[in-house]
Amino acid sequence: MTHSDAPLGVFDSGLGGLTVVHALTEALPDEHIVYLGDTARVPYGTRSAETVVRYARGCAKVLTGRGVKALVIACNTVSAVALEILRAELDLPVIGVVEPGARAAAEAAEREASLRREPVKIGVLGTPGTIASGAYPRAVSQISTRLEVVGQAAPLLVPLVEEGWLEGQVPELAVRRYLEPLLARGAGVIVLGCTHYPLLAPVIRSVAAELAGRDVPIVDSALATAKDVVTFVEQGRVPRAAADSRHASRLEVLVTDRPGSFLDVATRFLGERVPDVEQIDLA
Amino acid sequence: MTHSDAPLGVFDSGLGGLTVVHALTEALPDEHIVYLGDTARVPYGTRSAETVVRYARGCAKVLTGRGVKALVIACNTVSAVALEILRAELDLPVIGVVEPGARAAAEAAEREASLRREPVKIGVLGTPGTIASGAYPRAVSQISTRLEVVGQAAPLLVPLVEEGWLEGQVPELAVRRYLEPLLARGAGVIVLGCTHYPLLAPVIRSVAAELAGRDVPIVDSALATAKDVVTFVEQGRVPRAAADSRHASRLEVLVTDRPGSFLDVATRFLGERVPDVEQIDLA
Repeated sequence: MTHSDAPLGVFDSGLGGLTVVHALTEALPDEHIVYLGDTARVPYGTRSAETVVRYARGCAKVLTGRGVKALVIACNTVSAVALEILRAELDLPVIGVVEPGARAAAEAAEREASLRREPVKIGVLGTPGTIASGAYPRAVSQISTRLEVVGQAAPLLVPLVEEGWLEGQVPELAVRRYLEPLLARGAGVIVLGCTHYPLLAPVIRSVAAELAGRDVPIVDSALATAKDVVTFVEQGRVPRAAADSRHASRLEVLVTDRPGSFLDVATRFLGERVPDVEQIDLA
Repeated sequence: MTHSDAPLGVFDSGLGGLTVVHALTEALPDEHIVYLGDTARVPYGTRSAETVVRYARGCAKVLTGRGVKALVIACNTVSAVALEILRAELDLPVIGVVEPGARAAAEAAEREASLRREPVKIGVLGTPGTIASGAYPRAVSQISTRLEVVGQAAPLLVPLVEEGWLEGQVPELAVRRYLEPLLARGAGVIVLGCTHYPLLAPVIRSVAAELAGRDVPIVDSALATAKDVVTFVEQGRVPRAAADSRHASRLEVLVTDRPGSFLDVATRFLGERVPDVEQIDLA
């Protein structure tokens, strides 16, 4: 069994996965977390599956090299195309964002359907890579055969968040353009299928409500994943850090591009100042 | 002297540099061109200078390995931070986009100033990397000490072009947000300091005219660079391919991510169907 004092490893193509870390540190304050953001090659969502798998293997290697006791893939694109490969290749628990997101979406859709007394489809907003992979429909079909999933690639939302354009006309128009076809195809709940999107949740919520003429439940896959990790720890499938651990509450952040320019963005995702940033080379 | 039948090497972070290739093939129909787009790591414009230099060296190595007789850096970000390094390290002519763009901008600004009978500043739209490097002000200062340059990072324009949103409200609002501060600071000509931007030229032209209350000359750095390469060939600084060369009019395109998904975008940049796409590994 991996030692309980070992860190949890979390990685993402960039810094969006810090939204998962934020939720994890609140729920598991004694855990030491090592986060890797592949900022030199972000975004993954517009790349081919082969390339994403290659990049994901590199990220996983860095974190297993640091002795993590579990690996959290805080990236929808990687979870969509590389989760099973990493699970097969690695000898430790690997948790992705798609399964927890799909489960939370299925629950929200069932609730909404019973309220509205009619079937409700799950609408997924994601990167082109995530949508093309069909990972959400596949994950939902393993939970319920009755639920339908419709997907919409939203490639402009990641750059909007990276640029910090979180409100105003440009994000509203972009979100509207992506939500319109999704709602027209019957989506009654919306899954934020990318760890960047929670920062646009207020815009997505208000545009969806305006288009649908009613509140549309929003499911945050990052939040759902953090809850899953907590369950893994509570069930002992990942050993829990001792409360007096010398690593208590410690967060290390590794990046592949020079830190500095993106610390503002990181702070936005994490909800607090990012400590201890170290640059590493993946090539 | 490098053999005249050797190809011209052109590279860019992605496929935007095909706008340079388009202009080159029109002016130099007998030349064989090998184009490399680092599509697995695009965009470079939001990365640090160190990372861009590392990636640029990798691209240059592939093309020199194919025996090119000259290297055209069809990327403003790479030209801005790595041109001098590649010139020092390589034993062949290296042509970037910033110097030709700056020269064309200086000419346009002088023309505009004499028309308007008042000094006119050069406004540069570019990626964060290009603007932060100060490459355009530096290049312009070597042409004229009277001309002032103001720059504006426009990180959302590359994703907009990649997404194919070339007209309508979203690109108009984004372009407006970037042009407003540039014109307010006195820009009288606008340099398209990124090979992606020519596809947005109609929007940039109309928004600039509306904001300024007059036509604002737009300088295309890609076009200026192609003209420079033609001059190099005409002056014999790069040996000219024979008209009966067996490579006549041939274009090879190398990419680092799986081709397919981006062939539409490539066609948009090149203005015709992209032939012979080969995937290579830079890692």
